[in-house]
Amino acid sequence: MVKAGGYANRIAWVDLTGKKIEYHEIDEEEARKFIGGRGLGGRIVLKNSVGKNPLSPENVLAIMVGPLTGTLTPMSGRICAVSRSPLTSIFGDSHAGGWAGATLKWAGFDGVVLAGASDKPVYLLVKNKTVSIEDASNLWGKTTEEAYHMLREKHGEGVQFYGIGPAGENKILFANIMHYGKQSAARASGRAGMGAVMGSKKVKCIAIIGEEKDMPQPSRPDEFEKARQQALKKIMESPVTGPKKGGLSVYGTSVLVNVVNEIGAWPTRNAKDTMFEFAYYISGENLRGTILRDTPTCHACPVACKRDSQVLDGKFKHKSEGPEYETIWALGAMIGVGHIEAVSYLNYLANLYGLDTIELGNTLAVAAEASERRLIKEEIKWGDVDKFVELTKKLAYREGDLGNTLAEGGAKAAKIFGDPDLSMSVKGMSIPAYDPRGLKGFALGYAVSNRGACHLRAYTPASEILGIPYKTDPLAVENKVELVHLLERLFAFTDSLDMCKFSTFALGPEDYAALFSAYTGWDITAEDVLNIGERVWTQERYFNQLHGLSRKDDTLPRRFMTTPSPTGPSKGHVIDDATFNKLLDEYYKKHGWNMDGTVPQQRLRELGII
Amino acid sequence: MVKAGGYANRIAWVDLTGKKIEYHEIDEEEARKFIGGRGLGGRIVLKNSVGKNPLSPENVLAIMVGPLTGTLTPMSGRICAVSRSPLTSIFGDSHAGGWAGATLKWAGFDGVVLAGASDKPVYLLVKNKTVSIEDASNLWGKTTEEAYHMLREKHGEGVQFYGIGPAGENKILFANIMHYGKQSAARASGRAGMGAVMGSKKVKCIAIIGEEKDMPQPSRPDEFEKARQQALKKIMESPVTGPKKGGLSVYGTSVLVNVVNEIGAWPTRNAKDTMFEFAYYISGENLRGTILRDTPTCHACPVACKRDSQVLDGKFKHKSEGPEYETIWALGAMIGVGHIEAVSYLNYLANLYGLDTIELGNTLAVAAEASERRLIKEEIKWGDVDKFVELTKKLAYREGDLGNTLAEGGAKAAKIFGDPDLSMSVKGMSIPAYDPRGLKGFALGYAVSNRGACHLRAYTPASEILGIPYKTDPLAVENKVELVHLLERLFAFTDSLDMCKFSTFALGPEDYAALFSAYTGWDITAEDVLNIGERVWTQERYFNQLHGLSRKDDTLPRRFMTTPSPTGPSKGHVIDDATFNKLLDEYYKKHGWNMDGTVPQQRLRELGII
Repeated sequence: MVKAGGYANRIAWVDLTGKKIEYHEIDEEEARKFIGGRGLGGRIVLKNSVGKNPLSPENVLAIMVGPLTGTLTPMSGRICAVSRSPLTSIFGDSHAGGWAGATLKWAGFDGVVLAGASDKPVYLLVKNKTVSIEDASNLWGKTTEEAYHMLREKHGEGVQFYGIGPAGENKILFANIMHYGKQSAARASGRAGMGAVMGSKKVKCIAIIGEEKDMPQPSRPDEFEKARQQALKKIMESPVTGPKKGGLSVYGTSVLVNVVNEIGAWPTRNAKDTMFEFAYYISGENLRGTILRDTPTCHACPVACKRDSQVLDGKFKHKSEGPEYETIWALGAMIGVGHIEAVSYLNYLANLYGLDTIELGNTLAVAAEASERRLIKEEIKWGDVDKFVELTKKLAYREGDLGNTLAEGGAKAAKIFGDPDLSMSVKGMSIPAYDPRGLKGFALGYAVSNRGACHLRAYTPASEILGIPYKTDPLAVENKVELVHLLERLFAFTDSLDMCKFSTFALGPEDYAALFSAYTGWDITAEDVLNIGERVWTQERYFNQLHGLSRKDDTLPRRFMTTPSPTGPSKGHVIDDATFNKLLDEYYKKHGWNMDGTVPQQRLRELGII
Repeated sequence: MVKAGGYANRIAWVDLTGKKIEYHEIDEEEARKFIGGRGLGGRIVLKNSVGKNPLSPENVLAIMVGPLTGTLTPMSGRICAVSRSPLTSIFGDSHAGGWAGATLKWAGFDGVVLAGASDKPVYLLVKNKTVSIEDASNLWGKTTEEAYHMLREKHGEGVQFYGIGPAGENKILFANIMHYGKQSAARASGRAGMGAVMGSKKVKCIAIIGEEKDMPQPSRPDEFEKARQQALKKIMESPVTGPKKGGLSVYGTSVLVNVVNEIGAWPTRNAKDTMFEFAYYISGENLRGTILRDTPTCHACPVACKRDSQVLDGKFKHKSEGPEYETIWALGAMIGVGHIEAVSYLNYLANLYGLDTIELGNTLAVAAEASERRLIKEEIKWGDVDKFVELTKKLAYREGDLGNTLAEGGAKAAKIFGDPDLSMSVKGMSIPAYDPRGLKGFALGYAVSNRGACHLRAYTPASEILGIPYKTDPLAVENKVELVHLLERLFAFTDSLDMCKFSTFALGPEDYAALFSAYTGWDITAEDVLNIGERVWTQERYFNQLHGLSRKDDTLPRRFMTTPSPTGPSKGHVIDDATFNKLLDEYYKKHGWNMDGTVPQQRLRELGII
């Protein structure tokens, strides 16, 4: 049993088949080794979901927070969902901001694990250290926003919605779990299809009610307050995260649009190009200039990178959170849409249905290129927003052959269309908004990410663009192995805390160690932070290895390896096989893995994974 | 001397050369025959400006209001400038809304005539029935907005600015006179280059101060109030002008964008096409959805079709009136710009410099097509906003050969580039936002308009699109001669009153007759309205005839007569020579003119013009 500050020391185990709920204490040894969030959630999934069909009752879905969640630690207000991913069939975890995480902690939980499957639609009501299974027949079929408002009507404005829309219900493989609450609209747990897992269990949502006064107290309050103030100061003074400093606070995540486009690293029209001629119009600057109406924030965050956008009239009339940088790219440049009001509308639809916008954009891009190359009959032109709106609705409801195909995501759709290389994906998950031909760190980063092509495992542009923690050349592969190795460990730790990744623009391992040590009372060093990160990372690699993954799966989309970038500073750049293989060799060596990409048993034991 | 209600019976004659000001009474016979505004202003110009170089001291510039200006007659708040146009060298008049007209009347004037030219920059201060010539050396070189704010600083917030920006000072041939005031930002007296005439006289502006209490009273107050209420009711109940009915009140003038585009009558990329693929994004609906921040109105107008737009950040950051329908087309579709924030920014620049947006767009389109066809070396691509911003600045300041060429307007620039047919213009003035291949009324309307290609002389789409005063087929030439003949007389009357043309969507000749009769005490009938309109119209035709114009000048741009419309409902349509000549024949007959397009002396005498 855990006696450290920050832990509620309570995880609900919800057997949806038998409609039974058990409450477990947390094993102290496990908590010290895996912290919480992604790490401890991964532990649960490794123990329960190996070899299980992701959409079967046998798979489990762990909804987790970390020891600092719910505290006033800046940028700590996050929640995550961990499971075997139906999109990739490998390890999946997915994080969101807002108030759901903090409220879950205040309600008395470090996690809620969904096991089995209900026969009828239900939702879980979480409050006062108790979880109850409630009838959701009236919520089923509703959009995320509608369902949230119905819940709010019933449970009051304090209720936090963490659940699915029609996409999750219809088991779209890239369905999100979405979060809505009084303080936050449409925060997304995206990418790995966690919404489909929730939908497969016939759970519409988790409704969370809690109050800050019930937050577990810090072990060493004065020391924690000092560490918190120190972290806050760094965040406030950073040119990236500091409010009023420009960067994330002023322009939101889409401050990156112009920057990444101008270096020729913005995959455009399914990465046929690396710069988008209308990038400015969908940039953070122009978003702020036009349809931005408010800048909300997550619990305990001074950065306020979130956007509330609104189109007040016309065919794009809507009000929604975002669009964020990744969405702007996926539903913008990637499909040739150059108007922020249209991108925001597509984002709004994705949020209502509960779809991952990155995978959605990639999938639509696959469809558009398939159409362009006459692999399919449907006429889908780059930039045709009306068509993309239609296809988004179709795939969210699996309407028709095309809707049903696109519901499987970009990689599977490309295979069905007859050319797997149409899909810009790794391990079945499509790429985010960076072209590795122009940002070489992601050549390795995408390939070795253990949940598929992802920017959130090791965000190398931090170094290549922002010079954090040190500057590297975006177009060079030199020093990228070290960088990936550092960042993937750091992020594995922050995801386990579970703190916002943007905090790493201002904080280092020593800051996380100080915050964690003071709050929990368990002293760790900066070095421990990275070692724990290595453990969490390797656990996920091992999960994937148990499903047959090895070096052969650490790949890049062929386009990046065979077609040189046509424009901008990256013009002529490509990632050739020899360079790529050298990167992999070095990377495996760094981790102490075998050259076939598998983790030696000895290493797993050393790390306490097996 | 006039003793009718509504007239101040005072016109200031400002000799800028001799710095002398005389005050004239109005001749009653002239007022009964020509009303005011465009009619009476035209009278002054006919008597003084024939054969005079438009930019020489010999030309006069009459700034006029009408008998209903300053009253609470709905949609009566307008002002006009009349002169020989430097753009076309023919008759020029130009109207604007806002509060300048009403205030001029309240200050005690029916008009202020600028004659001669000052040697140093001056402005005219108009208040208490007096005009004074003031030093403007500190205002010269300033943008319209800057100059207005400096004047406001000096004269208080009640001052109305009616003057020029750098474009007028630099005698750009399509410089506007712009109006700014407490209640209205950036209203434009556009098209005929009246700003260049003002600039040639070294007059920066007229600064007008007046109070409503000094408004001349109606001759028959009860009857007037009845007529006013009747007019107001019609305006409020009209689906086009009625507030909250949709149409102009809700979406502003750009409510027309989608409508005109969808019938294939939106000249795109210098009229190479008739539909614009990004029309929706620059429509009134999307403007309202995105950058619209307020909907101000003109004096005594319940419609409030004006827009106040604002882009709050980024490279298009600005706040300005509009953009209006014509501007959206000229600085949008015509030059391939499909983003409302960019169009609005170009509009803002045009307003600051004091440029006519229609001619500006046409001129930039001529440059872009000349570049595309390699007639000039400069690379100017359709839709390249940054380039258009650069060229707008250059031409406003006559920078370099290209700036100096573009400063002459589309027709002259096309000649200089070596192909006059590049210019979509008639009599030296470029077309507005309607393609006559898709709206056939303008085939005749543009050709016979007596100030060059213009939509404001006989607005045939009222009939072809809105069915006002009766429905005609947009693609047919049948019934268009009657329509043009009716509307040009009606508009010549309303421009003389001087009431907003949009009032004709709700009111008919009988309403204007009732309003005019009750206020002035001079009884006229609906028939008189059209007869007076005929007189005003013919006076202008005669002015042009005195400068050598005849049938040979009643033409259309060759593109409309030789190149069929490529898209939409107008596809395949063109105006062939035979059809066109038949229209002209019928039209001349209708007016009782000679078949060479000249007005017989007998007709001029009948109408009391000579």
